[in-house]
Amino acid sequence: MITKQNVLELDNNDPIGFARDRFYIPPGKVYLDGNSLGLMSHDTHARVAEVTNRQWGKDAITSWNKHNWIGLPQRVGEKIAPLVGAAPGQVICCDSISVNLFKTLAASLTLVQTEQPQKNQVLSTPDNFPTDLYMVQGLQQLLGQQRCELVLEKEQQLADAVTDTTAVVLVTEVNFRTGRRLDVETLIAKAHAAGAMVIVDLAHSAGVLPVDLDAWQADFAVGCTYKYLNGGPGAPAFIYAAERHHAKLQQPLVGWMGHANPFEFTPNYSPAPGISQFLGGTPPVLSMSAVDAALDAFKDVNLGQLRFKSMQLSELFHDLVVQFELTSELTLIAPEDRNQRGSQLSYESEHAYGICQALIERDVVADFRSPNYLRVGFAPLYNSFHDVYLAVQALADVIESKAHLSERWQQRNAVT
Amino acid sequence: MITKQNVLELDNNDPIGFARDRFYIPPGKVYLDGNSLGLMSHDTHARVAEVTNRQWGKDAITSWNKHNWIGLPQRVGEKIAPLVGAAPGQVICCDSISVNLFKTLAASLTLVQTEQPQKNQVLSTPDNFPTDLYMVQGLQQLLGQQRCELVLEKEQQLADAVTDTTAVVLVTEVNFRTGRRLDVETLIAKAHAAGAMVIVDLAHSAGVLPVDLDAWQADFAVGCTYKYLNGGPGAPAFIYAAERHHAKLQQPLVGWMGHANPFEFTPNYSPAPGISQFLGGTPPVLSMSAVDAALDAFKDVNLGQLRFKSMQLSELFHDLVVQFELTSELTLIAPEDRNQRGSQLSYESEHAYGICQALIERDVVADFRSPNYLRVGFAPLYNSFHDVYLAVQALADVIESKAHLSERWQQRNAVT
Repeated sequence: MITKQNVLELDNNDPIGFARDRFYIPPGKVYLDGNSLGLMSHDTHARVAEVTNRQWGKDAITSWNKHNWIGLPQRVGEKIAPLVGAAPGQVICCDSISVNLFKTLAASLTLVQTEQPQKNQVLSTPDNFPTDLYMVQGLQQLLGQQRCELVLEKEQQLADAVTDTTAVVLVTEVNFRTGRRLDVETLIAKAHAAGAMVIVDLAHSAGVLPVDLDAWQADFAVGCTYKYLNGGPGAPAFIYAAERHHAKLQQPLVGWMGHANPFEFTPNYSPAPGISQFLGGTPPVLSMSAVDAALDAFKDVNLGQLRFKSMQLSELFHDLVVQFELTSELTLIAPEDRNQRGSQLSYESEHAYGICQALIERDVVADFRSPNYLRVGFAPLYNSFHDVYLAVQALADVIESKAHLSERWQQRNAVT
Repeated sequence: MITKQNVLELDNNDPIGFARDRFYIPPGKVYLDGNSLGLMSHDTHARVAEVTNRQWGKDAITSWNKHNWIGLPQRVGEKIAPLVGAAPGQVICCDSISVNLFKTLAASLTLVQTEQPQKNQVLSTPDNFPTDLYMVQGLQQLLGQQRCELVLEKEQQLADAVTDTTAVVLVTEVNFRTGRRLDVETLIAKAHAAGAMVIVDLAHSAGVLPVDLDAWQADFAVGCTYKYLNGGPGAPAFIYAAERHHAKLQQPLVGWMGHANPFEFTPNYSPAPGISQFLGGTPPVLSMSAVDAALDAFKDVNLGQLRFKSMQLSELFHDLVVQFELTSELTLIAPEDRNQRGSQLSYESEHAYGICQALIERDVVADFRSPNYLRVGFAPLYNSFHDVYLAVQALADVIESKAHLSERWQQRNAVT
């Protein structure tokens, strides 16, 4: 029997509990949707005001030098690097995760096919986040099936499905629906043994799991900054490219900011050395400054403790769901073993949409994913154990009062 | 002889002079660099604060519906549409201009080659903005020369250079160096007569020239929002695609936001109808909200009067340069005829970098382009005729005092 007292003790003993004060917590709300949109830190709020009031407002164009806007993509990349286990010079912030998938897909396919032209397949899972699959489909349509063919296998059979014709494995470490965490390290070893490369999508990993791209020998990775990195809605994404590929790679979206000498304005493209060759257009300064400031919320936060707290939060949530006897309405589809999960729980329920909406009415924010999943995300930087307690209390109230069965939830909104 | 009195009268009689009050003018500065980075409007400043404080800060994830973040790309597109002569449903705000060039290049090549597979050339000018040329080079490297080959011709011979093998003409209406405005309408007619399509880059046109994409029968266009549309540094760009192409086109960067039903999360891509098929990743809400608010500065501004004022401003500037006898140091490389110019003047000078820096020290902001161009931009929404008078006075002072010859300008900064 877990008591409120137990929960408050967990908060009192939380070694990274200090980080919550770095965030603006919406008053009166329990926010368990950091896996979809992270909250705003006070630093981020101050930075955005600084960028508008002083930098753009007063210094305008001179800010490219004066406030080093021009160096933002690299600077933000270097702040992300330690969160994903990357040595310096391998991570850069730019574009959306979708666009970055296209760049890394084309780059890795080209690299592999230079040596092994018979390899044409991109292996992924039908359960991957759709944009990952769509980007392969877009490339396939452009290049033809002989150069790019999407092949799908169930995620738990992925490592065994690598064949002679596999050029690239595209894998998301944490499944966006179920929260299942895959063994990416083993997958990379098997892919490499067969001469294939691996692109890792870290959308649900970066900032909440210990990621070790260098140690895993990953080839490429992409990730987003608006979930556990708290960069703001639609904030620019990042790319990791292993240094060993830098000299040989070719990515097709070659824009002026990725040129070796962008301000020479020469008509022929010549890539910047290193990771900067992944840049294309002018960086979105407002959004990227927000990401830059948001990353300071990780200062003095031990990533092992962060992961441990994340597992504790999800475990507490589910233990309370069991204790409140809610499992007849909510079937856990995330793995039971907390080590095999990312930082979210997912429940299947016929009434998942209504449950999500009734929770929001009770100031508990989770999200819904089609057709019938309730997702509950845990952001250990700012979520408390008490948040979890309040959330499951509200969930019990929803189900007991049958608020989730209201006719109001027949009409679904576009998002969440 | 132009007197200060004449100049002040021009301001007093300016029919769109009211718009200046909508902007935050950096105190004490004369800002003639709106062709590189437009200034911030008061509405934009307020909107960014609203998006951080209330929308992201308090309403967080629920803002996708509550504040219609999800509809931003279309809503902003519809605000840009009347500025570029587009009927509704043909303009959308997304990504960078570089990425949008790739999308429209691939889409137009594919459309043309479906009917005429022998057409493989993309015709442009060596003087085009480099990112435009680089994006063709990136596509050429990916597809091979048989499907995509960049061919360059001098800009004034462009229309006559269209041949049987021209698939796409990629043209920027206003040259970023010289400020020369090309006759895009005639070029489109000639290209169409030869079975080619035209992509128009409106980076230096949108918001300052009357653009008539529909009337010109343009196929595709791209443009940026951080110059004359005042969307903020690195703000997201836009795409125009003529409605007649919507049903048949295929663009390769197919992300989840461009899916017909993004929140169904299905593994197979199916494009959204209409212009929304150009969306890829999640829209950058902070930056895009800034653009949305910035566009309100065009309210009640007649575009013909805007263009007329733009021409008056550039003409006044050059007339004063002549009057102050500065033409021995500064050679005009923009066309003499104001009708053939965009909204900037460009001067060639051995000491262009030093002149630009010495002007900035005198609170007059213009910009420098390699190797030896001084660019002076006129933003008729907020620049006054008095701005121009003060700028040329400062320019005369720089040259008379030889401030531009200072050794301090031997070392150049990265930008500006």
